[in-house]
Amino acid sequence: LSKTINVAIVGASGYTGLELIKIIEAHPVFKLTYLATSKEDDTLEALHPSLCGVVTMDVEKADATKLAKKADLAFLALPHKTAMGFVKELIALNVKVVDLSADYRLTQAVYEAHYVPHIDPENLEHAVYGLPELFRSKIEDASLVANPGCYPTASLLGLTPFMPYIDQAKHIFIDAKSGVSGAGKKLSDTTHFVTVNDNMFAYNPLGHRHQPEIQEKLLQYANKEVKVHFVPHLVPITRGMLSTIYLEVSQPIDELFKVLEDFYMDEPFVRIRKQPVAMKDVAGTHFCDIYAKYEDGILHIQSAIDNLLRGASSQAVANANLMMGLEESLALPRFAYVP
Amino acid sequence: LSKTINVAIVGASGYTGLELIKIIEAHPVFKLTYLATSKEDDTLEALHPSLCGVVTMDVEKADATKLAKKADLAFLALPHKTAMGFVKELIALNVKVVDLSADYRLTQAVYEAHYVPHIDPENLEHAVYGLPELFRSKIEDASLVANPGCYPTASLLGLTPFMPYIDQAKHIFIDAKSGVSGAGKKLSDTTHFVTVNDNMFAYNPLGHRHQPEIQEKLLQYANKEVKVHFVPHLVPITRGMLSTIYLEVSQPIDELFKVLEDFYMDEPFVRIRKQPVAMKDVAGTHFCDIYAKYEDGILHIQSAIDNLLRGASSQAVANANLMMGLEESLALPRFAYVP
Amino acid sequence: LSKTINVAIVGASGYTGLELIKIIEAHPVFKLTYLATSKEDDTLEALHPSLCGVVTMDVEKADATKLAKKADLAFLALPHKTAMGFVKELIALNVKVVDLSADYRLTQAVYEAHYVPHIDPENLEHAVYGLPELFRSKIEDASLVANPGCYPTASLLGLTPFMPYIDQAKHIFIDAKSGVSGAGKKLSDTTHFVTVNDNMFAYNPLGHRHQPEIQEKLLQYANKEVKVHFVPHLVPITRGMLSTIYLEVSQPIDELFKVLEDFYMDEPFVRIRKQPVAMKDVAGTHFCDIYAKYEDGILHIQSAIDNLLRGASSQAVANANLMMGLEESLALPRFAYVP
Amino acid sequence: LSKTINVAIVGASGYTGLELIKIIEAHPVFKLTYLATSKEDDTLEALHPSLCGVVTMDVEKADATKLAKKADLAFLALPHKTAMGFVKELIALNVKVVDLSADYRLTQAVYEAHYVPHIDPENLEHAVYGLPELFRSKIEDASLVANPGCYPTASLLGLTPFMPYIDQAKHIFIDAKSGVSGAGKKLSDTTHFVTVNDNMFAYNPLGHRHQPEIQEKLLQYANKEVKVHFVPHLVPITRGMLSTIYLEVSQPIDELFKVLEDFYMDEPFVRIRKQPVAMKDVAGTHFCDIYAKYEDGILHIQSAIDNLLRGASSQAVANANLMMGLEESLALPRFAYVP
Repeated sequence: LSKTINVAIVGASGYTGLELIKIIEAHPVFKLTYLATSKEDDTLEALHPSLCGVVTMDVEKADATKLAKKADLAFLALPHKTAMGFVKELIALNVKVVDLSADYRLTQAVYEAHYVPHIDPENLEHAVYGLPELFRSKIEDASLVANPGCYPTASLLGLTPFMPYIDQAKHIFIDAKSGVSGAGKKLSDTTHFVTVNDNMFAYNPLGHRHQPEIQEKLLQYANKEVKVHFVPHLVPITRGMLSTIYLEVSQPIDELFKVLEDFYMDEPFVRIRKQPVAMKDVAGTHFCDIYAKYEDGILHIQSAIDNLLRGASSQAVANANLMMGLEESLALPRFAYVP
Repeated sequence: LSKTINVAIVGASGYTGLELIKIIEAHPVFKLTYLATSKEDDTLEALHPSLCGVVTMDVEKADATKLAKKADLAFLALPHKTAMGFVKELIALNVKVVDLSADYRLTQAVYEAHYVPHIDPENLEHAVYGLPELFRSKIEDASLVANPGCYPTASLLGLTPFMPYIDQAKHIFIDAKSGVSGAGKKLSDTTHFVTVNDNMFAYNPLGHRHQPEIQEKLLQYANKEVKVHFVPHLVPITRGMLSTIYLEVSQPIDELFKVLEDFYMDEPFVRIRKQPVAMKDVAGTHFCDIYAKYEDGILHIQSAIDNLLRGASSQAVANANLMMGLEESLALPRFAYVP
Repeated sequence: LSKTINVAIVGASGYTGLELIKIIEAHPVFKLTYLATSKEDDTLEALHPSLCGVVTMDVEKADATKLAKKADLAFLALPHKTAMGFVKELIALNVKVVDLSADYRLTQAVYEAHYVPHIDPENLEHAVYGLPELFRSKIEDASLVANPGCYPTASLLGLTPFMPYIDQAKHIFIDAKSGVSGAGKKLSDTTHFVTVNDNMFAYNPLGHRHQPEIQEKLLQYANKEVKVHFVPHLVPITRGMLSTIYLEVSQPIDELFKVLEDFYMDEPFVRIRKQPVAMKDVAGTHFCDIYAKYEDGILHIQSAIDNLLRGASSQAVANANLMMGLEESLALPRFAYVP
Repeated sequence: LSKTINVAIVGASGYTGLELIKIIEAHPVFKLTYLATSKEDDTLEALHPSLCGVVTMDVEKADATKLAKKADLAFLALPHKTAMGFVKELIALNVKVVDLSADYRLTQAVYEAHYVPHIDPENLEHAVYGLPELFRSKIEDASLVANPGCYPTASLLGLTPFMPYIDQAKHIFIDAKSGVSGAGKKLSDTTHFVTVNDNMFAYNPLGHRHQPEIQEKLLQYANKEVKVHFVPHLVPITRGMLSTIYLEVSQPIDELFKVLEDFYMDEPFVRIRKQPVAMKDVAGTHFCDIYAKYEDGILHIQSAIDNLLRGASSQAVANANLMMGLEESLALPRFAYVP
């Protein structure tokens, strides 16, 4: 571990940017050499007062050429649509990229159906979907990794072990619950404390953009076209995510936990639980906790992650570790924010 | 409205007891003449400091004979299993009863499969399930009403309008979320603030006692045996409940909102929403808010209530109003705890 | 109570506007005949979805002349500074006004030192400070009442009984805590759920505008110039306010509770507590709960109110009741949002 | 840092026990070789499910002799009163002890006035109060360190820099706010979610046991007998603590921040803030954030810590580091639980 690899973060002002800074500061190999936002004149202390006395670093206005001189790999925590312009430049400059936006997660047709016309189809074609448990070897060879969405991460890790049992004709229902940090720092009525506190509600039911992401990756991973129906909810919690999945399976599942345990045998960051999972047991960590129950033809799966870590920033670091030939687990947080 | 009807509450110490006191105090006809708990020496101010300066009344140790001398109708907010002993006595003394426990909600066989042997099967046979929108005329004639559980109330009001579209061979999935007051005042690790805050988790997945209640009442109401799968969750909220329902339907539903609006045309306490429902819009009220969406053979229903009011105490008062020949809506709370 | 008095609300979109609507809807004499905001095209259901099925009413763009034709008294829930323009018009049109802004609370000099130049000094001179327990008889004769701030209401009700014991040379420290609804519906970093949840912090320490309001009213009421130091805090709670007061007194206070009980003997909406007060016991009500402790020359007072009700809207209705010759307590909410 | 020092934790089941485990697991020198509770048959996974897959270790029933064979230093996270029996045994067995209870914090007379008769006065006499910023050199030489209470830690770090300005005749008022984890895991009405959520209240006003601790340590540190009045509050937050201090000072303080900055010049874990401090910026860390304001003879100080870390477990590790001749900052957490 004697060598040092220089890395950059673009998009330092948001929640996932902050989490990236925290993880990289504690990383034994990565060294943060470039930190940028899309605006002028930001300072780290103003953006994140909690980092005062911990991390001292200049924040620059994002510039691909400058970045390329200072870092070998860049984490992009930029909004969807604006990310792809920047990625294109960085890849051309031979910088490896982990992109936390949605811009490289989907095939071009699906992306354009749900977002906007894609301006970087060449790189899109070679981008690898960064869910290590499912696509590890491809990530190791990638120079551009599309970091998965938080909802797809939780849902895919819960569903994939059971793909052999899933009948393509049947429907998969995912009832997902997310903490408010998933909505980002941007101000809106929906994230006002008075709106959220003592409240709970669904949004974009059956129409959320993460639904095609889940469906497409299941197809890609298991070569099976399944029907996913997805309804996300906002809960009065800062961080954490729970995906609850319901489906009818095509054959009885006798040894439910064995299916899970065999599938995740060599995965230290997926924990198979014998009791219903709790958001708080994973908040602050890279863990995905999974619980399942089978009864009379029905399979019920629960999958919990920290939406900002396993659902964004720690997964980005896991991907970067793999891309740079390091041990995947380096610096991934394991101690939950409990109590 | 010149007459007065004397009513009693047994079980004054819990959350539903408190809500009953509040509603009856504002009731134009009911007069609270007897208030009891199962213990000696309780005082109302010690039990509920918020009632200081609002309600002054002695709290007695529950005694059926004394109650029968003072009141024509009793609300029982006692634990499951202990309620039925008391109901038996009261019915024998010609007191009408609204029982908030589970003791008279189910047929004997189903009750005994999920709870304990029933000690009052005669009255059980004549008890009426107190969901006014579904069983109003029977409630009007009843001397014993079993007040529905909170989860069944929300789920049944969401599902029944769509029963004509439901295929008995298909599965109905109910993902329910409840505020912590639903767990009652009793101390447990599960209700400790530190356990619940910033957390969310399921409990009794696919095994909760409210599942047979929902199934049995759908059969009773619509004469259709359906397969319900039910998973409740605890959310860091004091009061409120959201039932999210997923199912495949047997025929396309063209005019989704018309189905709902026709079904609830004359029901002032069911609101059909064009946007996803929010727990907070019903907290503090007797309203049930319903939203639905249909897509490609899939029906998704959301139903929100206040677990302590529509899910317990205000529904009990609605039932009592009907049993005493009054207008159902008397004193039912309509102003939500918003903001 | 056979007569009806027509009233108007200007500023229907905010939290205090909503609370006014709720109280007036339940009022036996007041009839809401005019509802306005400062914008075009608002509808009540869009502004406050929780009122759907409860209150049906057009929302107009505020116009003093139209209002004057429809109502005898107006509640103004407008921002500071914009309120005074509207008040001036309404008073000229012989409409009585309860103004919930700060515009008529202070003497001109003090107002202008903390806010902006006053554009309506004539009416300011005759405005009465609407804290009924202290200035009831003046309110009865007023045509313009300045509704007190929430912090001053809690602090003044706690302090005034002890004014005889207060030494002008000594300092009074008020450590106040407010729920987030006090900051209003406006979006800001400070009211983002993620900022507030699991957090607590002071704002404007020793520099908040409510400090001169408290000081001036103590002088006006007790003819004593005292030194008040005031630090407000935001707590992760929707509604509720707690003022904790510390001071050295000039003489021992032997019968602390007697001082309070004598002072508030005839006041049904001030409750003297023998245990520390709790925000939740008053949330949803017009009550002010007070607790005090004396030890070795030190007086410690706690005063709790609902910031939106006793600190704004229910106090406004109490004032309107008095101004219109009605019983002060009409329609004032007494049942707390407990649990 | 090549050597390893074996340490033990007694009292593994509570919140501070969990925090100790987490810190020590990440410690470069300390190795956890003995973990115990006061009961039989506990397992780490059952006590703390979040540690599953992170820490694997047997939990024993506490036994001083066994402990002494396995560890050179013990952290005791036992209840007040029961700790001192265990400390006595361990000291006799030459084990160094950091005791997180109150048993060795006070002089015997003061302890016995507020708690119970002390059974280990010999060790009490030599115990050192473990607030490193104030008593570092004594801690380095101690074999028994009494870890400070959370309220005294926050209050003392805020007050001590200003001791030269404090007039003994004047009163110091401390209004403190604590997250619920400070009350421990024990079940009580006070910690029930429904009691705490949307609520805030004081407890033990002017009578809390931390008041003499603050007073005594100020005397010990600054040789000045001052009058402290202390009122703690519970806030609906899991972890975090804010001490707000008010006092009249004897002389003007011209350069307020310079006083603080000079005092804490060499202290990396005290941060002087130019804006009011926020609980969340220190939650998860060993930092104490301090803000102050001076105005017209009045000094106002705010001091924020994580009650479980700087107020308990990370301070215990800081003390252990000093006692074992290590660098004080080893393994002390610096990244806050933000967002």
